[in-house]
Amino acid sequence: MKRLIIPEQAAYRQIRKRNAVADADLQFAVVEIMEAVAKQGDEALRFYNERFDDYIGDLKLDPKQIDEAEALIEEKLKEAIDRAYLNIYKYHKAQERAVERITTSKGIECWREARAIEAVGLYVPGGTAPLFSTVLMLGIPSQIAGNPKRVLCSPAGKDGEIHPAILYAAKKCGIREIFKVGGAQAIAALSFGTESIPKVDKVFGPGNSYVTEAKRQALAYGLAIDMPAGPSEVLVIADEKAEARVVAADLLSQAEHGPDSQVILISNSENFLDEVDGELRSLLRNLPRSAFALSALQQSYSIYFPNLEQAFECSNFYAPEHLILNLDNAEKWISKVKRAGSVFLGPFAAESMGDYASGTNHTLPTAAFARNYSGLSLESFQTQISFQNINKEGLADLGPSVSLMARAEGLEAHALAVEIRLKNERI
Amino acid sequence: MKRLIIPEQAAYRQIRKRNAVADADLQFAVVEIMEAVAKQGDEALRFYNERFDDYIGDLKLDPKQIDEAEALIEEKLKEAIDRAYLNIYKYHKAQERAVERITTSKGIECWREARAIEAVGLYVPGGTAPLFSTVLMLGIPSQIAGNPKRVLCSPAGKDGEIHPAILYAAKKCGIREIFKVGGAQAIAALSFGTESIPKVDKVFGPGNSYVTEAKRQALAYGLAIDMPAGPSEVLVIADEKAEARVVAADLLSQAEHGPDSQVILISNSENFLDEVDGELRSLLRNLPRSAFALSALQQSYSIYFPNLEQAFECSNFYAPEHLILNLDNAEKWISKVKRAGSVFLGPFAAESMGDYASGTNHTLPTAAFARNYSGLSLESFQTQISFQNINKEGLADLGPSVSLMARAEGLEAHALAVEIRLKNERI
Repeated sequence: MKRLIIPEQAAYRQIRKRNAVADADLQFAVVEIMEAVAKQGDEALRFYNERFDDYIGDLKLDPKQIDEAEALIEEKLKEAIDRAYLNIYKYHKAQERAVERITTSKGIECWREARAIEAVGLYVPGGTAPLFSTVLMLGIPSQIAGNPKRVLCSPAGKDGEIHPAILYAAKKCGIREIFKVGGAQAIAALSFGTESIPKVDKVFGPGNSYVTEAKRQALAYGLAIDMPAGPSEVLVIADEKAEARVVAADLLSQAEHGPDSQVILISNSENFLDEVDGELRSLLRNLPRSAFALSALQQSYSIYFPNLEQAFECSNFYAPEHLILNLDNAEKWISKVKRAGSVFLGPFAAESMGDYASGTNHTLPTAAFARNYSGLSLESFQTQISFQNINKEGLADLGPSVSLMARAEGLEAHALAVEIRLKNERI
Repeated sequence: MKRLIIPEQAAYRQIRKRNAVADADLQFAVVEIMEAVAKQGDEALRFYNERFDDYIGDLKLDPKQIDEAEALIEEKLKEAIDRAYLNIYKYHKAQERAVERITTSKGIECWREARAIEAVGLYVPGGTAPLFSTVLMLGIPSQIAGNPKRVLCSPAGKDGEIHPAILYAAKKCGIREIFKVGGAQAIAALSFGTESIPKVDKVFGPGNSYVTEAKRQALAYGLAIDMPAGPSEVLVIADEKAEARVVAADLLSQAEHGPDSQVILISNSENFLDEVDGELRSLLRNLPRSAFALSALQQSYSIYFPNLEQAFECSNFYAPEHLILNLDNAEKWISKVKRAGSVFLGPFAAESMGDYASGTNHTLPTAAFARNYSGLSLESFQTQISFQNINKEGLADLGPSVSLMARAEGLEAHALAVEIRLKNERI
């Protein structure tokens, strides 16, 4: 990790850029995929499946396999997934809001009601690991929202199958429509619809840079997306009371995601930063994904500030996806957190707890998008419709103000719509 | 209006396209503006001000003018704005949520807290009318959210000034930073920042097709936007009990916005549709903006369905920005509304009431985006940060499940971060 001592704002700016690499070739490659899927539908999907995932076979997974998955995974893993499911369900269920009607003035009631988005697409990346946790994080809030159509896309593994842990998690979330398609082509299919895959209204889920770029392009076709995504990241603020080995493990748990991940450690003790460096070296030795982690650490920073106020200022500027406050009495610092995706308080709150099972959603804004986006929640799967109920008295009372304002804006028919009602004896 | 009798779904699809015209030239014109402002800053803004708005002068409005505006507008208009302010404030203030901590399992507390987005840009279009109502709709929720930096951009009028009604509304919302810049160049300035205008995190507000395209392009530079916007539209569902003249006035109050607006009327009485046609002809005669309205009506539809269930199915497919239910006992139809921006219930609920003063926000999704976007609300000016507080007991209880799941996903350091904590006697 690169060490910075009391850096200036100009240095923050550099750090805030993360490790992301812009790539014009990628953009064109994705345009090509989007167009091919729009024109050739399933045929294009089968072509890309063979080309990118070495998979030749049906696009749609036989729903029987969803039911059979349970028998194929270890009992202990099943129990762990069940526990995670319950916590995540409880947290997101509490996000439901009762309808509250507001009488804004005499005879006028206004309120909002949530409606489930009609059709949602859930993307679960493939690759080296079966990301059943992502299925839970997308599937549970959509299950609570009650989206009438829910479509899950995930690339087939090397064996042509989707991992039973993914299918088991999908079953728990009530998902029955699963397609073996990954990458930008999956996002394209959900944007345009194909013979097999329905067009949806909104797409959710993480993915590599192709998936991210495809989601960005899909916006232009009227799709909504959960958020722009990028490589994972963590920022830890720790004081001398923290255990260096614990902090090192937290840093590694982000760094192991990939060489483009970034981890930042801020402390008010230089000595502590040294200790963490030592623990990192020690832990790295036994880490299976140490090459990824090492590469990410080389692009990462440990920063010293003499006081924690400055640490929070720097953190808010960086706007980390995950923020761990491994501080004495972490609760008292909550109000200082202005920009972050998800925050972990105290020595026991490992970020992996939130990644899997504490209950919070792990789909979070990266790349400083925590400054203007929030993590996934129940609301991400809903729209809010506003309603107003205006009775005769309400119109009589407020109507004249409205027609006056409408006319001041030069909108005569707006004024007329009120005045015709005010004059009409029959209503 | 074009008449459709019990149309099939294929016909809905045609209607749902609205009147929007795609325009590649526009896209390139906006790219050029974005690049010029990114490179030349204020100089580019002054160039475009002269070219598009015939305005040569300061970019920043003297804040003294904000205070002086009150004296320049009629007392009655001021009072009307004051009333509108109170209703809109009350409705949006009620959207604040108390922090609710959820114990998801033993020793684990999870919750969300709202934070104001740091810097927001509010765009208020210029043109023929001073849109002070838009100032209220953007300014009030941002005032309640407490965004530390709020910047308003609006083009100078023909007299080189910004209308005092706009300034008065801005003052009420506590906005002190106003720039005389409009169009795509204003969005560019807010995206990149210039010598005068600060870069913001999120941009809000309606605008013409240049502004809309600029907001779309700004997404690629990391800005967030309120929603994709398009021409205004209304869908009215009315039965025979409705007054034809009232319905005609409601249709005109959207149609007068511009030739690209669209209005839809659905009824279970063909006779009623004929009556409305007659009233439209009669009202059009005296309308100052009748050319706009006539042009919009030519692209609009009146639709007959024998029963109202079908009317709602068609409306949900169309996903209107404004939906007026001029129906006997309108309340009983609420649950049928699945997709809409804002809904007006009963014979007295003119859409203009919501445009100005009922309390609901008039910044709403158009062009069928009500299927996957919501109108503006307090939350639009905030991010939600999730927090988790995990104590020793919570880690001991749930930690083993987490490390098991992490390992099943191949993420060893994620497991380690939990296990090091479980083993450590010192924390």
